[in-house]
Amino acid sequence: MARPATHREFFAVKTVGEVLAGFRPARRTVAETVALELAAGRVPSEPVRAPHDLPGFARATVDGFAVRAGDTFGASEGLPGYLDVIGEVAMGRAPEIGLRPGGAVAIPTGAVMPEGADAVVMVEHTQSTMPGAIEVVRPVAPGDGTVRADEDARARDELLPAGRQLRAQDVGVLAAAGATEVRVHARPRVGILSTGDEVVPFSTQQLALGHVRDATAVALATLVCEAGGEPDLRGIVPDDRVALTAALGEAVATCDVVVVSAGSSVGTRDETAAVVAELGAPGIWTHGIAIRPGKPTLLADSGGVPVIGLPGNPRSALVVFRLVGMPVVRLVGGVTQHVAEPTVRARLDRDVPSVAGRLDVVQVALRDGVAVPLFGSSALLTILTRADGYVLVHEDATGLPGGAEVDVTVYR
Amino acid sequence: MARPATHREFFAVKTVGEVLAGFRPARRTVAETVALELAAGRVPSEPVRAPHDLPGFARATVDGFAVRAGDTFGASEGLPGYLDVIGEVAMGRAPEIGLRPGGAVAIPTGAVMPEGADAVVMVEHTQSTMPGAIEVVRPVAPGDGTVRADEDARARDELLPAGRQLRAQDVGVLAAAGATEVRVHARPRVGILSTGDEVVPFSTQQLALGHVRDATAVALATLVCEAGGEPDLRGIVPDDRVALTAALGEAVATCDVVVVSAGSSVGTRDETAAVVAELGAPGIWTHGIAIRPGKPTLLADSGGVPVIGLPGNPRSALVVFRLVGMPVVRLVGGVTQHVAEPTVRARLDRDVPSVAGRLDVVQVALRDGVAVPLFGSSALLTILTRADGYVLVHEDATGLPGGAEVDVTVYR
Repeated sequence: MARPATHREFFAVKTVGEVLAGFRPARRTVAETVALELAAGRVPSEPVRAPHDLPGFARATVDGFAVRAGDTFGASEGLPGYLDVIGEVAMGRAPEIGLRPGGAVAIPTGAVMPEGADAVVMVEHTQSTMPGAIEVVRPVAPGDGTVRADEDARARDELLPAGRQLRAQDVGVLAAAGATEVRVHARPRVGILSTGDEVVPFSTQQLALGHVRDATAVALATLVCEAGGEPDLRGIVPDDRVALTAALGEAVATCDVVVVSAGSSVGTRDETAAVVAELGAPGIWTHGIAIRPGKPTLLADSGGVPVIGLPGNPRSALVVFRLVGMPVVRLVGGVTQHVAEPTVRARLDRDVPSVAGRLDVVQVALRDGVAVPLFGSSALLTILTRADGYVLVHEDATGLPGGAEVDVTVYR
Repeated sequence: MARPATHREFFAVKTVGEVLAGFRPARRTVAETVALELAAGRVPSEPVRAPHDLPGFARATVDGFAVRAGDTFGASEGLPGYLDVIGEVAMGRAPEIGLRPGGAVAIPTGAVMPEGADAVVMVEHTQSTMPGAIEVVRPVAPGDGTVRADEDARARDELLPAGRQLRAQDVGVLAAAGATEVRVHARPRVGILSTGDEVVPFSTQQLALGHVRDATAVALATLVCEAGGEPDLRGIVPDDRVALTAALGEAVATCDVVVVSAGSSVGTRDETAAVVAELGAPGIWTHGIAIRPGKPTLLADSGGVPVIGLPGNPRSALVVFRLVGMPVVRLVGGVTQHVAEPTVRARLDRDVPSVAGRLDVVQVALRDGVAVPLFGSSALLTILTRADGYVLVHEDATGLPGGAEVDVTVYR
């Protein structure tokens, strides 16, 4: 008769901080070219430089009159300056007229500054008392109401850094620079394997007693996408060493990152660890993280491919993958810039106990600025679906008091 | 000669708070069915209920021995309780044995509780001193080490609410429940039009003097996707009333939301407003928002289709669309749940001046917990690409002092 007691594990446990600082695979995906329309969220593999000055010509930034600033010095409501309106600039056209001393040229926001003008008087600061002339009631300094031809960027300036996901405005500046495509890191292919004799495909409609549907794989695929990766759902592997060795070997050969939800029982976990250990150097990096839930997490490097063995319980697996798996996917996908984890502040509804030496991830619901901790077995997935976010109780704390102001990392 | 002064606008300006509370179109997209693998980020159009109890059977949540809790009462290290190990439960299988008083059944995490057992003693709290028996050194209460068959959810319980975007764990719970597809709101189709005689397609390689590439449309498309919408890039419309009327009319007829980047000059803006006003009841809701940058923003409702006229300058357009456009897209796409805007705290590097009565959106770079304001003409798009996020200076403030702790909304 099998006795679970004989499988007791030894955990060489690392803190989450140690994991984030230390488990940083060198692997990076190759560069590829994507069309600008599809570039949002992608990670440039090299800095993007301005092909020419931007905007490329001196522009008005207000509606008004292009002038020589010197002609407006001393102008005031009581003693306005008079300027002859000698023409206008049309939007999107080269100016047909240059400015001469004492003159003004009507100009709309965004139009080309005429030769000889060095500022624009806002229309609100002018009065029109007689045809062909304006009164300027407020002086302008050189440069007022304009941007220089190279004020947004000079030719060859770095427009965007490598290693940061492209945001809406980054796509916009690339368009402004005429970039129709951009060099980015390929999305890391993340192999997702499930193990466990109790696990069946989520499409199974009639469950046999003792079976559970695979909730983890498809949820992990969502997180992989959020981290910029491309999930490769590789199905459910039977709990036997030969099958697991073959499945993991294939995954490591074709993926940039491999994630195994390693079954919930200690026997399955041990088996997974043994197979990973045999996969290749440098092998297992840690077998256990000081986090709750999620302690029995395995991190390994198989010939340069990071392998993440997650707890079998879906809730623990998702908590750990958010905290330590997504950063690995981002890193392999070329993200070098630190990604701040934004939070909302809330008042903790009640005491949260914890144990020093581990990071506690406490799920909370947010109600009018109050964070209500959701307690319950880590086997319960609905705690995560009821949560709006989570609070971290750090390793040096032994809990958080009710009423404390906490930072809630919000799920999106 | 055209005199911009004759086009001076009257702004019936609303605050951002008034816009968010008041400009809430009734339009919602229809429901459609999507496969679970493609459901992340989508918005359920009706609550999702559990088809049966979850997990569906009483499960062990630890590795150990299924027992009758009463048989362990009073057990301690000094005075352990002795139980006969009468069998084991295999993962994923129905138990082949029931528990009898004084007995224990070996059970791995996740397996089915045998008949008659009401708790699981963790293997760590047992000792094995003779074959076929264990010593229990710590008592368990009924329910310890197990979850009930309906503890995650009871049949017909609401698993997920309507109106909230599906997150990774939501997809997971749907998989656990055997849902292979889900009813969601269709993605709102968001028509994006650009106007302005100076604006040319971003693919234009050689710019004529006075021309600028359309940076706004493709950046807006990114934000539309982030808000769960489907961008419909409808190109650049010449600055003439007939063309604009035709283009806007077509967009309103086929889209759920229409966004016009309305050209940068006051003349173009007035033209756009006039065309929108003619499009249909109830017409223009506000023509101006008390925000900087982005004041000349037009909000209208054309026969039930929200129309958003953005400032022509790309930076202002993106700032305003994030704050007031994305919430409209989410709403039309069925999101009813409030989406908290997460932030990171930082110390402001220097004074930020502001004017009471308007919301100032100040772009900042984050450096080691310090928020460095990025100043410069709102015509400069690179201020946005250099920014890591923004700080809001609210309407009742006249600025923020250097050294103040501020909440930075971080771009992703």
